[in-house]
Amino acid sequence: MVDTLAALRSLMASHSPPLHALIVPSEDYHQSEYVSARDKRRAFVSGFTGSAGLALITKDEALLWTDARYFLQAEQQLSGQWKLMRLGEDPAVDIWMADNLPKDAAIGVDPWCISIDTAQRWERAFTKKHQKLVQTTKNLVDEIWTNRPPAEIKAIVIQPLKFAGRSVTDKLQDLRKKFAQEHAHGLVVTALDEVAWLYNIRGNDVAYCPVAHAFAIVTSNSAFIYVDKQKVSIEVKTHLEENGIEIKEYTEVSVDVALLATNVLDSVSTVKSVNGKHQTGEESSNLIWADPASCCYALYSKLNPDTVLLQQSPLALPKALKNPVELDGLRKAHIRDGAAVVQYLVWLEKKMQDIYGASGYFSEENTAKKDKDLQSLKLTEVTVSDKLEQFRASKEHFRGLSFPTISAVGPNAAICHYKPEAETCAELDPDKIYLFDSGAQYLDGTTDITRTVHFGRPSDHEKASYTAVLKGHISLGNARFPNGTNGHQLDILARIPLWKDGLDFRHGTGHGVGSYLNVHEGPQLISFRARNVPLQSSMTVTDEPGYYEDGSFGIRLENVLIVNEADTKFNFGGKGYLSFEHITWAPYQTKLIDLSLLIPEEINWLNSYHSKCRDILAPYLDEAENAWLKKATEPIAV
Amino acid sequence: MVDTLAALRSLMASHSPPLHALIVPSEDYHQSEYVSARDKRRAFVSGFTGSAGLALITKDEALLWTDARYFLQAEQQLSGQWKLMRLGEDPAVDIWMADNLPKDAAIGVDPWCISIDTAQRWERAFTKKHQKLVQTTKNLVDEIWTNRPPAEIKAIVIQPLKFAGRSVTDKLQDLRKKFAQEHAHGLVVTALDEVAWLYNIRGNDVAYCPVAHAFAIVTSNSAFIYVDKQKVSIEVKTHLEENGIEIKEYTEVSVDVALLATNVLDSVSTVKSVNGKHQTGEESSNLIWADPASCCYALYSKLNPDTVLLQQSPLALPKALKNPVELDGLRKAHIRDGAAVVQYLVWLEKKMQDIYGASGYFSEENTAKKDKDLQSLKLTEVTVSDKLEQFRASKEHFRGLSFPTISAVGPNAAICHYKPEAETCAELDPDKIYLFDSGAQYLDGTTDITRTVHFGRPSDHEKASYTAVLKGHISLGNARFPNGTNGHQLDILARIPLWKDGLDFRHGTGHGVGSYLNVHEGPQLISFRARNVPLQSSMTVTDEPGYYEDGSFGIRLENVLIVNEADTKFNFGGKGYLSFEHITWAPYQTKLIDLSLLIPEEINWLNSYHSKCRDILAPYLDEAENAWLKKATEPIAV
Repeated sequence: MVDTLAALRSLMASHSPPLHALIVPSEDYHQSEYVSARDKRRAFVSGFTGSAGLALITKDEALLWTDARYFLQAEQQLSGQWKLMRLGEDPAVDIWMADNLPKDAAIGVDPWCISIDTAQRWERAFTKKHQKLVQTTKNLVDEIWTNRPPAEIKAIVIQPLKFAGRSVTDKLQDLRKKFAQEHAHGLVVTALDEVAWLYNIRGNDVAYCPVAHAFAIVTSNSAFIYVDKQKVSIEVKTHLEENGIEIKEYTEVSVDVALLATNVLDSVSTVKSVNGKHQTGEESSNLIWADPASCCYALYSKLNPDTVLLQQSPLALPKALKNPVELDGLRKAHIRDGAAVVQYLVWLEKKMQDIYGASGYFSEENTAKKDKDLQSLKLTEVTVSDKLEQFRASKEHFRGLSFPTISAVGPNAAICHYKPEAETCAELDPDKIYLFDSGAQYLDGTTDITRTVHFGRPSDHEKASYTAVLKGHISLGNARFPNGTNGHQLDILARIPLWKDGLDFRHGTGHGVGSYLNVHEGPQLISFRARNVPLQSSMTVTDEPGYYEDGSFGIRLENVLIVNEADTKFNFGGKGYLSFEHITWAPYQTKLIDLSLLIPEEINWLNSYHSKCRDILAPYLDEAENAWLKKATEPIAV
Repeated sequence: MVDTLAALRSLMASHSPPLHALIVPSEDYHQSEYVSARDKRRAFVSGFTGSAGLALITKDEALLWTDARYFLQAEQQLSGQWKLMRLGEDPAVDIWMADNLPKDAAIGVDPWCISIDTAQRWERAFTKKHQKLVQTTKNLVDEIWTNRPPAEIKAIVIQPLKFAGRSVTDKLQDLRKKFAQEHAHGLVVTALDEVAWLYNIRGNDVAYCPVAHAFAIVTSNSAFIYVDKQKVSIEVKTHLEENGIEIKEYTEVSVDVALLATNVLDSVSTVKSVNGKHQTGEESSNLIWADPASCCYALYSKLNPDTVLLQQSPLALPKALKNPVELDGLRKAHIRDGAAVVQYLVWLEKKMQDIYGASGYFSEENTAKKDKDLQSLKLTEVTVSDKLEQFRASKEHFRGLSFPTISAVGPNAAICHYKPEAETCAELDPDKIYLFDSGAQYLDGTTDITRTVHFGRPSDHEKASYTAVLKGHISLGNARFPNGTNGHQLDILARIPLWKDGLDFRHGTGHGVGSYLNVHEGPQLISFRARNVPLQSSMTVTDEPGYYEDGSFGIRLENVLIVNEADTKFNFGGKGYLSFEHITWAPYQTKLIDLSLLIPEEINWLNSYHSKCRDILAPYLDEAENAWLKKATEPIAV
C-alpha cells in the first residue's frame, strides 16, 4: 500500500500542473454502484473493498470517506496509512478539501469517474480559496496499476419482448415525445442500466448487474450505441440496426458528444432511422439533455453549457414504472426465489441440528452439547451462502446473483453490508443470530430478500429488537398514502417502533429494484434523505428496516413491494391513494417475535402473509419442505 | 372593484416603464403573515380577506393565488372580475407569468413587499422570455386607495426580564459571536418579531401580534432600531439606549442600509456601545447578513450582492429555542388558557341545552324538539366566540387574542381558516359539529388550541373521522425521535390513520408558537413540505391534524407541544432522543370517539392526559366546572 501511495504521489508531482491532491472515486465511467474488477480503482488504492467510498491522496495524507454501512469494514481494511472519514460525522469531502488544502491548490480527478453534479459541487466549494479542479487526461491510478485485470469480451444478448414488455421502437418514440416537451434535441445516456433498458439488451461486464459497458446517444432522428464491437453478435447487430441504432466503438462517444454539441451528429449517422425523420414541432429544440447525477463530467465538458438541459434522465421514470409484463415477471421470479429461500432454511435447520446440536428453527430450547463432527462438515458463512446460491441456481431463468450475498453470524450481522470471505469468515453458531440478505438475477426479474433467524435460544433483547424491526417493516408495508407522497415521508414508519426505545438504523429503508437489471434502481427511494420523487403505481421498492448492535448482532427484514392503486373507502382530494403489494415470499421466524409487543392489526397481517406464503410456494416445494413451511407459517393467536 | 382595477391599470400604463402586469402581495414591508389594516393592500384590491394570497393584475386579467386553506373562502369573496388560482393545482405565479405574459414584459411590484427569495425566484422564471421585474418607486395601490386607514401611534412597551428570560445584552453578545463565526459584519433585521425579541420590546401595531413596525440593524459594534419615535416613551428610550441601541426614524433604514453596505454605518452611530468595541477576531468580516426569506428586496437592493450573506437569520433559532423562563411562562399561560376553554365548554353546553334543546356534551341522544326562545337569545359563531374571549380576558396577563378566532358550525368548519363575520355568520346548531380554533396573547406566553365538539347526536361518519384525526394527533404527540429529525419526517404520523381510509387534510400539521409573540413562528415546522430544520429540545410546535368535508363538516384537534429530551431505554448512535410534552389542557369529547378504533396504547394515553387535565386545571375552576371536567375526563376502559 505504501508503494502505491508513493507511486501516485510521484505522478501527482510530475503532472502538469502539479497536483496537491488526487481524488479517486468508487465509480466507473458510467457512475455505476457495482463496477467491474478493472474499475475498482478506489479499492486497489486504499484496500477498502466496500461498494461506496471515495479516496483522497494529498502529499502527506490519505483519507477515505465512506458511509455508516461501511464504518466497521473500513476500520478493519484500511492500513495505518489511511484515515477513515465518516460520512455524516466528519466534514464532507468538498468541505474538507476547501478547508484543508492550500489556497490555489490543484486537485486532480479523472473526469470520466465523476458526475456533473459532483464536479460542480466541488468547484463551488473550491471558489472560496481559489482552488481548482483539474481534469487529468489519463487516469493516474491506471498508470501505476501493474496487475490491473484485463478487459474481457462478454457477449451482449437481446432481452426478448416477452420479458422486456415494451419494444425499443416504442421506448424511443416515448423518449422523443419528451424531447419535444423539453425543447431537447438529443440525450447522452451514460448509465449502463439505462442503455440496457432502452435498447432491450443485456450484458455481462459487471458482476451482479446484467449490463454491458456502453454509452448511448439518442437524437430526434438518430440513435447510437458505443460499445466494444467484439461484444456484438450478428443477431444483436440485426436487433439494434432494425431499431435504427447505429453501433460505434466505445471510445467514439467523446467525439460524437462534441458533434452533438454542434448539432452535426445526425448528418454523420449512417443508419437510416426506422421511424423516419421525427418532427419535433419546435424550431428551438436545440438543448442536449444530460442527467447531472449520472452523466460524467468528461462528456459534459464537451457540451456547450448554455444549451445543456441538466435534468433527471428521461429514461429514469419509464424504467422505474414497470410495465405489466415486467410486473408479472417480477412476481413470478420472486415466487421461485422464495421457494429457494425456504429450501435453504429447511436444509440449514437440519445441518445446524446435525452438526451443532441446535434446537432448531422452531424450538427455543438451549443448544444440546454436542461434539462437533468432522471439521469437513463445518458450516461457514461462505459455505452456507454457496448452498443458498445452489438452490437459486436450480430455478428457471436463473442468471446469477444480484449482489454479493450477505451471510452473517452474530457480530458480523452488525456490519450492514458485510461480505464474508472464504478464508476469514465466521462459522455458523447455534447460539447466535444469523442474517442473510441475498438476491438473484432471473430473466424475468431481479430479487432481493433479507431474513434473520436463530437456531437456538435468542435473548430477550434480541427478540425485542427483532420485534421492533418487524413492527416497522409491517407498518411501512401496510401504508396507504395519496399520490404525490415521497419516499422520505414514509421512511419514519419503519423507524418509529425502534425510536420508541432509542434504537435506529443508519441506512435507507428502501430502494427500487430492476427488471433483470440493477438490484438498486432509482429514482424512487425510501430514506430520511429528502428527494422529490413521488412513489407511483407500478414502481418497485424494498422495505428493509434493521437494527445493528456493534460487536453483538444485527437484524434486518426485507421484502420487495410493488406500488399499486389502493381501494380506499374515500378518495379525499381526488388524488387517488396507493398501497404496497408484497411480492417476496418467505416466513418470518415466529420464535424471534415477542408477541406481547404486537397489536392485533400486526398479527392479522402476519397471519395473512404467512398463509399466502404457504399457498404460493407449495407447488415449488417437496412434501417435507411443505410440511416445514406449514409449521413455520402456523397462525398466531390474536 | 371594477373602479379599483381600472384605476390601477391606468397607473400601470402611465408608469415608467409602462407595466404589463402588477403584482400585489399580501405582505407588509416586514414580510409579516398578519398585517395592519393599512397594509391589507391585496385584500383591498381583490376583496379576498384571507391571510395568504397574491394578486396579479394584467391589462385584461385579474388573478388571485391562494392555498387550499382558503379555496372556499376565495370563491365566495372574489367578484367575477377575478380568477382564482389554486396553489398546488394551478401553475405557480412565476410559471404563469413567464408563460402568459408577453416577451420583454415589465412586471411591477413594490420591492418592500417581497422577500429576496421571492424576487430572485421570479427573476429566474422571467429570464426565459426576457421579462423584467420592475421595482415601483411608489406603491401603486396606496396611490389609488382613497380610504386607506391612517397610521396609528401605538406605544411600545418593555418586555421585562421576568418574562423574556434573557437580557438584550446577552442576546446581542450571542448574535455577535455568530457574526464572528460567519465572517459577518452586520445584520439587517426586518421581521417584526425578531426586532421585538432581540430588543425585549413589544408593540401594538398589528392585530394579534404584539409587535411594533420597526427595522433593526446590528453590527459588530453598534445596534439600531428604526421606528416612529412617537411610539417610544422615555422609559423605552432609556431601556434601548442602556443596551447600546440607537433609535432612528423608521424611514431612515434605507439610507443606513446603504451606509452599512459601504461599512461606514458604525462611524455615524451616536450611541456608545455598552459592550465596548467588539473584537471579531477576523479582518475579513465584511459580510452583511440578510435572511433571504424575510428581508425585503428593497433593502437587499441597497447592498452589494458580493458581500451579502444570504442565510437564515441568526435570530431565528435563538428565538425558537425557548429559555427556561419562557418555557415556564408558556406552561402557565396554557393552564390559564385551558381553564378558559373548559369554562367556555361548560357555558356553551348549558346554552345549547337551554336554547336549542341539545342533549349536551355527554349524551348521544337526539336533540329535543324545542321552540326556540327569543331571537335575542340566539347563539351565533360570533357571539359565542366573544364569550370565549371574555373567559380568556378574565385571566391574569391577558393581552388580547393571538389570531382571529375560528368559531365554525357544520359546513363552515370545513373552511380551515374560516373567520365568522357578525352579519353573515351561522347560528349554533345542536345537530352539527362545532369547531373552535383560538388562542390568546398573555404576557408570559402565546396560546393556540383547537377542539371539535358536538352537542347532539353525531353521525357514525363524523365519529369515524374524529377518531382518525385523534389517532393521528396522538401518534404525532407520542413520537420519540433522534436529534436531527426534521418536522417533515414526523408529519406523516398525523396523516396515516386518515390515509388508511383515503382521507387527508391540506394544511401543515404543526408550527412553532411564540413567547408573547407571533402565534405562527418558525423556523421549525411539521409539514409534508421538506425543510431542513431539525426539531430541538425547548422548541414549541403545534400538533393539529384535521379532516374537512366540503359543505358538511370539519374536524381539527390541536395542542401546543414542547420538545424535550426523551428518557429512552437505549441511545443508539449517541445522538440523544427527543419527545413531546403537551402543554395544552382541555378534554377531548369522548362521545365523538369510536372507541373500537383505538388501540390500548391510545386509550392509555387519553386517560393519562385527561387525568392530568383534571388535576392541573382544578385550581382555576369553580365547583360546578370541576364537576363537569371530572365527567368529561372519566377514564375509558381499555
